Order: sequence, then structure tokens, then C-alpha cells
Amino acid sequence: MATIAVLGPVGTFTDEAARRYFSSDKFIYCNSVTEVFEKLEKDCEYGVVPIENSTEGSVAETIDCLQKYNLYVWGEIYHNVSHVLAGTGKLEEVKVIMTHPQAISQCRDKIKKLLKSVPQLIPKGSNGEVLSTAKAMEIVAQKKDPSIAAIGSKNAAEKCGLKILADKLSDREDNETRFFVISKKQQQKTGKDKTSIITAVKDESGALWKLLGIFANENINLTKIESRPRHDKKWEYMFFIDFEGHKDDEKVKNVLKEVEDSTTYLKLLGSYPKGA
Amino acid sequence: MATIAVLGPVGTFTDEAARRYFSSDKFIYCNSVTEVFEKLEKDCEYGVVPIENSTEGSVAETIDCLQKYNLYVWGEIYHNVSHVLAGTGKLEEVKVIMTHPQAISQCRDKIKKLLKSVPQLIPKGSNGEVLSTAKAMEIVAQKKDPSIAAIGSKNAAEKCGLKILADKLSDREDNETRFFVISKKQQQKTGKDKTSIITAVKDESGALWKLLGIFANENINLTKIESRPRHDKKWEYMFFIDFEGHKDDEKVKNVLKEVEDSTTYLKLLGSYPKGA
Repeated sequence: MATIAVLGPVGTFTDEAARRYFSSDKFIYCNSVTEVFEKLEKDCEYGVVPIENSTEGSVAETIDCLQKYNLYVWGEIYHNVSHVLAGTGKLEEVKVIMTHPQAISQCRDKIKKLLKSVPQLIPKGSNGEVLSTAKAMEIVAQKKDPSIAAIGSKNAAEKCGLKILADKLSDREDNETRFFVISKKQQQKTGKDKTSIITAVKDESGALWKLLGIFANENINLTKIESRPRHDKKWEYMFFIDFEGHKDDEKVKNVLKEVEDSTTYLKLLGSYPKGA
Repeated sequence: MATIAVLGPVGTFTDEAARRYFSSDKFIYCNSVTEVFEKLEKDCEYGVVPIENSTEGSVAETIDCLQKYNLYVWGEIYHNVSHVLAGTGKLEEVKVIMTHPQAISQCRDKIKKLLKSVPQLIPKGSNGEVLSTAKAMEIVAQKKDPSIAAIGSKNAAEKCGLKILADKLSDREDNETRFFVISKKQQQKTGKDKTSIITAVKDESGALWKLLGIFANENINLTKIESRPRHDKKWEYMFFIDFEGHKDDEKVKNVLKEVEDSTTYLKLLGSYPKGA
């Protein structure tokens, strides 16, 4: 039975995704993405962290940890993120909403329509933003104040004994989050793989265009590119890139060799089977 | 005298940057980036919002608002972000830190060294994350609990009468934030300008490479490229791009024409004088 570090607490979307991927139930819940990487480095076999959401975009902390820690991407999970509004009273009584900042962003328009009279979603001097949607549910359940509601998974709401005040709260019904399974080991080739790298180009005109030309020449499809600030050089950027193929494929080998030769930094984060 | 909507409250780094740019002091403080855009649309002449930090990267909400609202980038301000740890007791007594999530990210390593014995920076069930560093300072000053400290500007700490427990807290001494001044009007050409656009490419292999080729052919230097999820198509991306030149320059006109013809979406966010 493997031990798995998961961004917690119980009932987060990360927890739901991890339970779909692993049959094992030895989960260790961590307070932050960084803590998942630390735990995995010390005494776990796998970790599960969010990498990007289809509405909100990338999780910067995850990209930065992938660059910093010597761990590999082992797999990916696409998981539907369906938010509900839950509380102890009635919808009309809600004056304050607690939740994770990304959840608010994902539900901004719907919340506005639903609660026209609410002066502010997150109160001034705010304890409205919390570290996870599941934690928000716990706090609202403890407070038993009908004017405070939480946004999160239906699962977590039910676990805390809260009433569902509104469901399908995400502005996009098909709101989905992509999670990475990380590991100390590297994956074998399956034939339907993706590879993730972080690279940095020289600070000169056309450098990124030349980099992308290497992939275009080998007809390799980029599935994601994201810039992150370099920690060693102010206002220069690194690029997190996902593309189709496994590091042991002949054309991926060629591309990686060429990228290494023409850039100032290359880190292979891993090759892993395409998720669903 | 112009009226300026600023991400508040008084004493945030955005406020500091806005006061450097505008001599006017008719500032209206807003609770979120979105509120700055809303205020500006209705009854202000300018708005000031953060666009990116040299350590932490882009502010997603700002990019999304630039896409959504019909407002222009009028100017940019680079402002040094020097954090301090402030409280009502002694450094050794600090058990909990309150601050904005981006501030914690910018100071992570220094805080770890400084407060070895602190079990967690942001407590469980957290009200450790707040909406601004200035607000964190206010709360810590109200609570008068020596075990709680805040991270933010020296300016804000002094305004609240807090003691500086540690300064130069940023992991990078030269930590800097870039702010956008936004307006309903467009700027004239000065000869030393930048232009910002948002564009989306077709979902086909090499599409981004071809887009960047348009700029490379005209020898135009990209100063930033950032991907954001498309709100209309799941797992497709838009690109926020900054480059050198003004929209009325001959070669920028050519580039914009070619980008418009070969992409599925183009929004010109504005041309503005290079900031310092």
C-alpha cells in the first residue's frame, strides 16, 4: 500500500481526484502545495497537487515547486470541479461567503446574479478567504451563523452537515481542474504520453520563437506553455511547456537535445501517460 | 484634478505606486482589481492595478479584466516592493503571520530562516490570508496580540503604529512590482513606447510559433508573453503579449494587421510610454 501526500483537508477537489487515481487509502493531508512536495521528498511514495484550472489558469506554486524539487511528474488527472454554495440557513440570509480565492474567481458571475443584495462577497478585514474550500465548509459548519456560507464541493458540504443553498455555481458548467501525480520515480513509455519541461531562453529578440521552432520542425504539438518569472534574473522568464510524446521517443530525444543546446536552462519534469 | 481608482486600502504598494505617478490626491480605494475596473468605467478618470511581480509573476485577475472591459493601458509604473515583518511584541513571540498570499510567496525562504520554531505561517482554518498587506497590518494592530505579526510595507506598518520586527524580508532584495495605469482614453506616441495585446491562435500544431514569427520578422522585441485560459473554449489559451513600439509605428501597424489576419482573436489593450 502506497502512502500519498495530498493537498488537504479531506473533501477538497484534490482529495476527490486522488481517490479516483489511487485505490490505496493511505492519504496524508497537507496544508499547502509546498508541503506536499516536502512530504513526498521525505516519506511518501506519491503526491497529488493541482496544476491548472480550465477557468482560472495555472497554479504558480505548483510550477515553482516542480522547478525546485527533484521529483517527477508521474501522471495527470482531469477532474470536474462543480461548486455548491452551502450554509446553515437560507439563501436569502447569506451576507458573507468564505472560500478559497480560486473558487471565488470560478463562480464570480453566478454569485453576483444569485446574491444581488450582498454588499460584498468577501468582507473587509477579511477572513473570507481560506486555504481550501473544504476548510471553508468546516468553519461555516462550526459557526452555525446563517449569514455566512461557503463555496466548495458537494461532497465536503455533505460531510460537514451543511445545507446546499445553490448548486452548479461555476460560471462555466464544464469547469475542470488538471492535477499532477508526482513521484520520485520516472514512468515507462506507454505510447500515449505527454512530457513536461521547464526551460529559459536567452534574453534576445526572437528567442522564444526559435525555441518553439524546434518543436514545430519535429511536428510535436505543444499542449501548454506558461511563463514564470526567473528567480535569479529580474524581469526574465522561464517557460513551463507540455507537449505530446515520451522522453524515450526518437523525435522527443532530438527536440530535448536541441532545446538543451540552444537555451540557458532545461529541466525535464517527466513523461507520463495522458490522463482523462 | 483627476479622480483615480486604486487597489486599496491606503498604504498598499499599489497606493505607493499611484502616489508616485499622480500628483493629484483624489484617490478612491477599491477592494479588488475588478472593482477598480468597474469604478473607472463609471466615474473615475484613471485606475491603478498590479500587473505582475518580478518574483511571483502575473496577476491573473488584471489580465482577465483587461480582456473584459473596454479600457486602455495608459502607463506603467515599476515600484520596489520591500516587505517588513511588523507586530506588537517581539520577534521570538511570533507564532502566526497574516498577510496577502502573494506577500507570503515573496518572503517564503526568509521567513523560514527567521522563525525556525514557528509551526505554521498561516494557521489552519485560516484567517492568515487577507486581501491586502495594509489590511493585515490594521488587523494585527487592532488585535494587540504579540503572537500575531503581519507582512507588508514599512509605510503601512508605521501608519498602524506597529513595531518593525524584521525588514528586507523579500527573498529577492530587488523584488519589484509592475503596475498598469488604465484609462478610457488612448495615449499619444512618445517614441519610447510599449504596446500590450491579447490574442488567441487556432488550435493547431505550430500556431504559437507562427504568431511569434510575425514579430521576429519585423524585429520587434517581445517583453512579456503570458497564457490565460479562454473563457469560451475549455483547455484552449489566449496570450497576453507586451512588445516594444507604439500602435501608430509603421512596423507595429504591419504586425497588428498580420496578427489580426492569422489569429482567431485580437484585442489591442493600448500603447503607452515605457515606465521606470
